[in-house]
Amino acid sequence: MTQRQLKLGALTMGCGGPGRHNLWLDPQLPADASVNVDWYIDIARQAEAALFDLMFIVDSQFITEGSPSHYLNRLEPLTLLSALAVSTRHIGLVGTLTTSYNSPYNVARRLASLDLISKGRAGWNVVTSGDAGTAGNYSRDEHYDYATRYGRAAEHVQVVQGLWNSYEEDAFVRNRATGQFLDPSKLHSLNHQGEHFSVVGPLNIQRSPQGQPVIFQAGDSEPGRDLGAATADVIFTHAASIEQGQAFYRDIKGRALQRGRDPEQILIMPGAEIYVGDTDAHAREIEQHYHQLDHSFELALKEFGRNFGWHDFSQYDLDAPFPQESLEAARSSFFTAAKRIADHAREKGFTLRQAVEFGRQLRPGAFVGSAVTVAEKMADWLQARAVDGFNIYIGHPGQFDRFTREVIPLLQERGVYRTAYEGSTLRESLGLSIPTCTPGRVQAR
Amino acid sequence: MTQRQLKLGALTMGCGGPGRHNLWLDPQLPADASVNVDWYIDIARQAEAALFDLMFIVDSQFITEGSPSHYLNRLEPLTLLSALAVSTRHIGLVGTLTTSYNSPYNVARRLASLDLISKGRAGWNVVTSGDAGTAGNYSRDEHYDYATRYGRAAEHVQVVQGLWNSYEEDAFVRNRATGQFLDPSKLHSLNHQGEHFSVVGPLNIQRSPQGQPVIFQAGDSEPGRDLGAATADVIFTHAASIEQGQAFYRDIKGRALQRGRDPEQILIMPGAEIYVGDTDAHAREIEQHYHQLDHSFELALKEFGRNFGWHDFSQYDLDAPFPQESLEAARSSFFTAAKRIADHAREKGFTLRQAVEFGRQLRPGAFVGSAVTVAEKMADWLQARAVDGFNIYIGHPGQFDRFTREVIPLLQERGVYRTAYEGSTLRESLGLSIPTCTPGRVQAR
Repeated sequence: MTQRQLKLGALTMGCGGPGRHNLWLDPQLPADASVNVDWYIDIARQAEAALFDLMFIVDSQFITEGSPSHYLNRLEPLTLLSALAVSTRHIGLVGTLTTSYNSPYNVARRLASLDLISKGRAGWNVVTSGDAGTAGNYSRDEHYDYATRYGRAAEHVQVVQGLWNSYEEDAFVRNRATGQFLDPSKLHSLNHQGEHFSVVGPLNIQRSPQGQPVIFQAGDSEPGRDLGAATADVIFTHAASIEQGQAFYRDIKGRALQRGRDPEQILIMPGAEIYVGDTDAHAREIEQHYHQLDHSFELALKEFGRNFGWHDFSQYDLDAPFPQESLEAARSSFFTAAKRIADHAREKGFTLRQAVEFGRQLRPGAFVGSAVTVAEKMADWLQARAVDGFNIYIGHPGQFDRFTREVIPLLQERGVYRTAYEGSTLRESLGLSIPTCTPGRVQAR
Repeated sequence: MTQRQLKLGALTMGCGGPGRHNLWLDPQLPADASVNVDWYIDIARQAEAALFDLMFIVDSQFITEGSPSHYLNRLEPLTLLSALAVSTRHIGLVGTLTTSYNSPYNVARRLASLDLISKGRAGWNVVTSGDAGTAGNYSRDEHYDYATRYGRAAEHVQVVQGLWNSYEEDAFVRNRATGQFLDPSKLHSLNHQGEHFSVVGPLNIQRSPQGQPVIFQAGDSEPGRDLGAATADVIFTHAASIEQGQAFYRDIKGRALQRGRDPEQILIMPGAEIYVGDTDAHAREIEQHYHQLDHSFELALKEFGRNFGWHDFSQYDLDAPFPQESLEAARSSFFTAAKRIADHAREKGFTLRQAVEFGRQLRPGAFVGSAVTVAEKMADWLQARAVDGFNIYIGHPGQFDRFTREVIPLLQERGVYRTAYEGSTLRESLGLSIPTCTPGRVQAR
């Protein structure tokens, strides 16, 4: 029996990873990387040469002084991905679009267009906007509350998928002999009337070679997990340990099973930071070096407020007990993450400074070691069913080089990573089936 | 003194021109051209080799049975243009985005991203959505009325331009020695509170080498002309004769002057169909051949209803007098165009069939003749100040070949067309100055 194969995504955030404010200080990275399409093309081609499944582009529509430097100035994800689509041939192209401030019709069109331009390699990372300040950029007085955000997201995805079924596979006849362009019986309106959206349709674009773009989702809260299990093809998460990964993996696959879905058709791909050195000790030195380069306590304190609705923590004494009252400000923001920090701080009796330090550690599993160690650990996570793959943070080009040159061949030797692309679409790479075309209605799973 | 230079755009509509329902029947065109990125890349490179100023991509967010075949299935303009940006080096990239169903923040971001990806070659064709059915795809019960559409459009453009001034030119210091990434004194919020939009800002993207994308606008009505004269860099229009072109040219440049603008900084570029033959007579045969191939009376009757709010004209006797009552249905749609047809039909005593035929002739100036004739006429229009240039409909590849191979060299010989690109940005090609950065406020012109 063939071994399960590790799936790999290259995750760029402008050019970083979580809590990395000053990546641009790395002289190996162009200082303008987050708006430099040539840099992105280089990275995409390097990832494709290493047979990665996908590029993953995150996003935000709101900045403050506390934003990491590469968030202050970056390319809109789908505009970027379309440029990458014609610069690559196999790698998947996953872009973040918020359901809070985009209409389903526009999202459906843009992703379907990317899917055709890339010949079946598009993916959509479905998110809601948790930053209250985003509302001010979109003519809204108030931020959507938590329940509304998730309700909108669930309905939004269904409408988009419904629109993607406007045309059946063989709707376009294009027979010059008979003069028939379209078989009109294979064009279907949606006529959706829902709580948040009403969309008649049809969409003005055909299906792609992979049927529909692949759906990615994050979100660790209960509604987040339910939404993911119901509608996602791939779950993006963070896992600090193999046990934590296994628990999340079982939980999501179980929820999918309860909804009548094949658990093999929903993949778990946490983010991962990777530091490769000549030896394990050397790798730890490299990690430490970059940690000191990238981070700043001052900016970390500002960004720490993000989970708490951008609460201003500079008003407190850093060495007094963590201010539990700040949790109130997180209600309509990233409450799950904020509550985890606040609860942990109470249990441990943390000061604010200690809580900020703890928050900085709430980051993806880091694989730190020699190439042999890193390959072994990654294979262990796969085989322990803690993951189906990883989305690797591409922050430091030198480290990405080492990963692709040294770790990938070891994964291939172990038989847990492909030696050639399986096909030409993202669904083929990920082993996902093509969704059935169920025209004219919102899909229920 | 140097002669004024003709500006040229390549206008693709999926693959057509107005009223051309069946372009795909041309065996020289890929039948799937409107969703075929490789075809678009070929056309863009061919246009760039011929030193065209720009590619121009139109759009719609709503289809009916009466839509031309290539409208039923086409790529979203900006997604397409980003793919063209990295496949070309000099040609401008102008995409249509409606102000009726896009938020200013998203429009500003997407165009600014395209502008950076193309290194200063983006343009925005600002439109309002006149098809009432579009509302049904965007969770609105009712179509915006005419006044609201134009009010939104005017404010929308101002907000987008205001957001494009979020960062001053030299805001990003990126000094690794001092650790300074951004000069925060050069980042400005917008804090716009208007009738239709409220947008705090700032935008999370820097200015491009051309400062801001170029603004294109169409619209022949009084509010359309005022909006164009106030905010556009380039006006897209139709002109059936040199005199009609001159009158429009004088009108728009006059309105711009009244607003304190330099009339040389607003360009008039009507659409144009071009048929080149070995002789003038041969060219007319070619035109007739394609006219018969592309058009269908049945589809034309359906599409005729578009200006009248998709009024169903199949209910009337084709050979009875034109039904003037149908004009009521055009009130919130394309009223200016509909009224012109209805008034003309009354004056001439047209039947419905005759009115539909007349409507089909309301199309761009057609330049039909040998290469010498076409070059001569185009130069005449330029020198008579009826135009600053043309947006040429790329419907039939064989004809585009002839135009670039035979007509372009004659225009160059006459000294009315460039022999090399003036620079690398769209503003440089068009001779437009870089807009001043006036941060933190909506621009008033």
